[in-house]
This record gives sequence, C-alpha cells and structure tokens, in this order.
Amino acid sequence: MNKEIYLDNNATTKIDDEVLSAMLPYLKENYANPSSMYDSAKISARAIEKARKQVANLFNVENEKTILFTSCATESANTAIKGVVEQFATNENNHIITTQVEHPCVLSVYQNLEKKGINATYLGVNENGELNIDNLLSKITPNTILLSVMHANNETGAIYPVYEIAKEAKKINKNIKIFVDGVQAAGKIPIELEGSEIDFYSVSGHKFHAPKGVGALYVKKGNLFEPMLLGGHQENSLRAGTQNTPYIVALGKASELALKYMDYEQSEVKRLRDKLEEGILSSLGNAKLNSKSTLRVPNTTNIGFEYIEGELILLYLNDLKIYASSGSACTSGSLDPSHVLRAQKVPFTSLHGSIRFSLSRYTTEEEIDYAIKSVVEVIKKLAKISPFQRELKELGL
Amino acid sequence: MNKEIYLDNNATTKIDDEVLSAMLPYLKENYANPSSMYDSAKISARAIEKARKQVANLFNVENEKTILFTSCATESANTAIKGVVEQFATNENNHIITTQVEHPCVLSVYQNLEKKGINATYLGVNENGELNIDNLLSKITPNTILLSVMHANNETGAIYPVYEIAKEAKKINKNIKIFVDGVQAAGKIPIELEGSEIDFYSVSGHKFHAPKGVGALYVKKGNLFEPMLLGGHQENSLRAGTQNTPYIVALGKASELALKYMDYEQSEVKRLRDKLEEGILSSLGNAKLNSKSTLRVPNTTNIGFEYIEGELILLYLNDLKIYASSGSACTSGSLDPSHVLRAQKVPFTSLHGSIRFSLSRYTTEEEIDYAIKSVVEVIKKLAKISPFQRELKELGL
Repeated sequence: MNKEIYLDNNATTKIDDEVLSAMLPYLKENYANPSSMYDSAKISARAIEKARKQVANLFNVENEKTILFTSCATESANTAIKGVVEQFATNENNHIITTQVEHPCVLSVYQNLEKKGINATYLGVNENGELNIDNLLSKITPNTILLSVMHANNETGAIYPVYEIAKEAKKINKNIKIFVDGVQAAGKIPIELEGSEIDFYSVSGHKFHAPKGVGALYVKKGNLFEPMLLGGHQENSLRAGTQNTPYIVALGKASELALKYMDYEQSEVKRLRDKLEEGILSSLGNAKLNSKSTLRVPNTTNIGFEYIEGELILLYLNDLKIYASSGSACTSGSLDPSHVLRAQKVPFTSLHGSIRFSLSRYTTEEEIDYAIKSVVEVIKKLAKISPFQRELKELGL
Repeated sequence: MNKEIYLDNNATTKIDDEVLSAMLPYLKENYANPSSMYDSAKISARAIEKARKQVANLFNVENEKTILFTSCATESANTAIKGVVEQFATNENNHIITTQVEHPCVLSVYQNLEKKGINATYLGVNENGELNIDNLLSKITPNTILLSVMHANNETGAIYPVYEIAKEAKKINKNIKIFVDGVQAAGKIPIELEGSEIDFYSVSGHKFHAPKGVGALYVKKGNLFEPMLLGGHQENSLRAGTQNTPYIVALGKASELALKYMDYEQSEVKRLRDKLEEGILSSLGNAKLNSKSTLRVPNTTNIGFEYIEGELILLYLNDLKIYASSGSACTSGSLDPSHVLRAQKVPFTSLHGSIRFSLSRYTTEEEIDYAIKSVVEVIKKLAKISPFQRELKELGL
C-alpha cells in the first residue's frame, strides 16, 4: 500500500476535521483573551463555557463547573495527585496507593512524593493485567489519603473496575480521595461520573481526535486540592494561565463526537481490532495475546511475538509504512521492556517482542487486511534470522 | 468606524497569518506523536527542534538546548520559581526577592511560598515605576536563593534593567538564581541572554502573535531545578507531557517574525503609540501619563484620567468597538485598582481612571486617529456626568 497505516492511536490521534473546523475561528478572528471584558472577548468566554458543557456530557456529569481545562493529561494527573497530597498530608504516616501499571504521569509523581516522605503502595496485577480488588482494599489504612487507578491501560487496553473500586474504598475509609486516569478510556468506553465515588478524573484531548496540548480534569463538587499553576483567576482560580480557547473548543467538539461515535467504536472498531488480532494469532505459532481474558477497550491489542525483537518488528513495519509501538510513546527511546508487561509477568521470551496495535474510527478494513498480511510476513522473515531457530521451529516458524 | 480597534495587545495578540500557515500541517496530516519512533513521528520531532532554534535566536542564545517548551508563561514562571526553591531551599532562613509590580503568575507563587515558610521581600517602585537598584541589591543576603524581576511591565510597559540587576546581584551572592519574566518584552525589545547572568527567562506565545497555550522557559546551562510536570521523558525530562507540536511550531515561527519586525516595532509602532499618547494628553487636561519618564516598550501607554471611572471609559469605548483595558486580563473581573499603579502611588484621583492602550504591528494610523478622537469625546462626555464637576472644570473639562 502506498499510504501510511496508522495503528498507534493510543499514542496520539489524527484531529477530526469537524474538530479542526470548530477551533479555526479561534485561531483567526476570535482571538481576544477570554478574560477580557469587551464584546469580542465574550465570544471566546462563551465558547469555553460551551466546551465545558460538552466535556461534562462526555463524563456524564450534570454540573459542568466540575470540569477544569488543563494543558494535558500529565498536568491533570500531576495537579490531582500533588494537589490532594499538599492539601491533606498532615503527618509522617500519610499513605497513598496506586498500581504498577499506571502511566508514567502517575507513577513519576508517586515516586517523587515517596522521596519527600509519603508512604506509597504499588499494587501488582496478574498475568492478564487484572487487579486483585480484595488485595487492593486490604492495603487501605486510616492514613491512606489517595488511591489512583487508571480506567484503561494504555499498553494493553485492560479496563479496571474504577467505579466499584472507588465505592468499596470509601466504605473502608471515607476520607480517601480517588483519582482515575481516564486518558485511554475517553472516546473508547462510556464514562459515568455522576453519582460515582470518583473524586478526580483526567483526560487528554489528543487521545480522542483533539489536538495535543489540552486536557481536562474533573473535580467532584466539594473536593479541595492545592492548585498547581498559580497566577490569574482563570478556571475558578484552580488553574492559572490564559485559557487556550482554540484547543478548549476543540476538546469540547471532540467530546461531542466521542459520544456520537461511541457505538461505532464498540462495534466496528472492535470488529476490526478482533480481525487483526485473530488474523495474526491464527497465522503465527509464536504470537500470544497479552491481557487475554481481561475486559479491554475496543481499539487495542497487545501481542507478544516469542523469540523476536520488538524494535526490529517495528523497524520492518515502519518500512512498510505501518506504524505501531512497543511500550508507550512517553517511554519510547528507552530499550527497557514495558513496565506494564513486566508487572503482568509476561515471559522473557515474548516480553521483548510485544507490540501494541491501537485502532481508531479512521482505521479501514483494507488497512487491517494489509496489516495482517504484513505482520505475518515480517515475523516469518525475522524468524529466519532469529538466533532461536529451534524454539521457533517448534512453534511452527 | 465599522471594524474593531484592538488596542489590548498586552492581553493577547492576533495570530500572524504566517504563524497559522506554519502550524496548520501539524494540526492536519503531521499529527504523529513526536516521541514515537516511526518516520512520520520524526517529521514532528524535527519541527520541534527547528522551533527550539528559532526561540533560541529570539533570546539570542547559542545553545537551543537551553529552551524548554511549556503550556504558557504562567507554567514557565511557576516552574522556574517553585523549581529553584524546591531544589535549593535548605533551611528556615531561605529568602527570595521580587518586585511589587510583577505579574500575578510570579506574585502568587511568592505568596504561596511565603505561607510555606520561605521569607520573601517585595520591592517597591517610585512614581514612575522605577526600581531603586541600590535598594534592591541591599536586600540580598547569604540566604537569598532567588531574585525575580520582570523585563517589562504588562500594565505600564516600563522596562527594568534586568541584565545589570542580574550581574550586580551575583557579585553580592554568586549562588543566587535570577528569574526574569520576559512575557511583555518578547517581540517588543531585543532579548540578549547569551553571556548574561540571567538563569531563567520566560515568554508566552500569545503575546507576540502565536496562539494562547504555549510558552518557553530558558534555563541557563548547568542550572538545576526540580521539574514541575512529572511523567514522560519529553523536553529532556524537564517538562513531561506530549509535546504540542502545532503550537511549538507556531512559537518558533512567531519568534522568527518577532526578530523580522523588531525594527518596525521600535519605529512605526512606537510612532503610533506616541501619536495616540500625545493626541490624548494634549486634548484633555485631566489626562496624565503613568510611568512618564521611564524607559518603556514601544507599544504600551498607560494613561490616568482624573475624576473619571475607568470601567465606564472602557464600557463607552467598547460601544465604539475600541478595545483597551484597565489592569491585566488576568485580574479583570475584579474591581480592585491595579496593584502596579498602587505600587507606583498613582493618586487616588486617577488610579481608578487609568487605561492601558497596547498596540501591535497590525495597528494602523487610521485606527489611532479614530481612537484619539473617540477617547477625547468619551472623556468629555463622562466629565459632564462626573460628580467631580468643580475639579474637572479646573482641569479645563
């Protein structure tokens, strides 16, 4: 095929044409500072409030004032985690909990807080990436002030039961704050925050067809936290800095479209993902699904190719203009194997040969057919030059 | 006039058409995550490095690796100030210095750090907004870890001698770190960081014809600070979060154009600003220039209208589609008089009637002629309904 086949939508997505159209007037004539008082500024201010309502709809929350706009999901996660700890940490026994499979924007903050004297627990997962909920709940103490669990994993697509976890956690310690990184859930599965026990929830625009550089943070009504960016009164004095009207409008439109395409995501994107997965697994004896039995978002598959080097697979696929990834883009450039797959105890033999394919509503049947054919050919080619000839032969390669 | 006359360019600016053209491909086909490894991602990564060089040129620094991209100048300032204090604060006597006329993104962080036990000194200014440098230097102690002075004031345009201050400050305490908020300098006056003693310098894209939602922070080589946004390895692990390729490209292009138009800014924009100022001052006996004798950026004038209410002036100008401001957009909505003009001890009689007009390279002679005529008419009209009839009559109104 002559065109690029983009199967790395968990790293970032193409901006939807409707999203681009919605934001363009705010990159052109409607440039006034939304905090200014004159008429042209009010156009921008109103556009931001419309977007806030659209994001609230995506989150299924009634009160759009619970939505703060940020510059990215990293900022959202950092704001929530640091903000809760700064607000509520009172003694040397303060304790925070998260999982070993979180995104670096959560894990790095936890590790940083540990250095500052906060006690942290990192929960493991089983070989399918599943959390043991009873084990999680058993870690909660009267000193626990924060629990962070992602809604869906960026590498495997595994969905975590965040509503149930939040509910059960608060039964044990009603003061605990719950942060959910929803970056890989938004646009892929419904979000239902109204009536839930989740206190903070973050999303990133560029993971669902808005631009890179805008995110949102849901803050349940009544929840306090110490803001991270200090200065002007923007975002109800909880996030200073001139509001990025074009991207906020884009995030609002992308949220509206995410709801519109939710059924398509669950049916057609899932069908193509399943086709890709089955096409590869049925053709290659060394291919194994990571996170097999787990509930997953519909667009993601993570496949381990035993005895083959992942970076080589990506290089060969790149030559065919097929774009996928190993690990997250935020950790790429590093040759360390994925912390997520290590937490799942993926065996050494396929840990280094695991590839994530992530689709979107732009992915076509033709692309998937070509990708299956290409991946199978590439793996067979690489098997011929692998030092593990005997093992691969036993697997039929 | 039928069109809008935008004289609030210190609040935000129109995006330059060339800037928009430069960024559009990255909102369209070149959407790959710049941290990814495949070919299409490398296009984005290269565009970011080109922009880094362009910003380095604007700052007149040779090593573009000293430039970090951020989401806004508020983030840049917060990162530098908090980052230095977290890195270097070691005992209860730690001391930081700034001025009373800084932007809220600096003052708020200082006030927050004070609450956490850091000692802070806020330097006053004289009636022209000038700092007493000897007084400033006398405040530096062996415990002083940070000094923040803005390059140009957002409300009055007053320029501060930041290179000289940095040099003299380091003679007294070589360990002191110098942060300069350059937001209102960029695009208006040359920036000369190479060889200077300035350690951190921040700018905001939307103040010089790039979009809202992107900024830069210069970090002099060898300077340590604790990063604020933690997560991925982006920006040399000093600012996590997927890079906003389109806006970074825009900031780069805007930096290039700022250099191209620097002479025009110093000559033509200044000529129009001076014409506006003289037109108003010569026609109205109650009009007084705030920061009269001070060195100022070429686009800004701040005029106090004695015995007239500023919000009323803005309202009447708004009806004529002339957009200006009192105070900064970041503090608008508040009826408190400007902290900058209070620090300058502007008398009560004109403090509440002070208006900032800020021009750009898009401002035309026709607009300035109309603005002079309109401002004079509006003030004469408001003088007729002012409760200070006697005082205004003495001033010829």
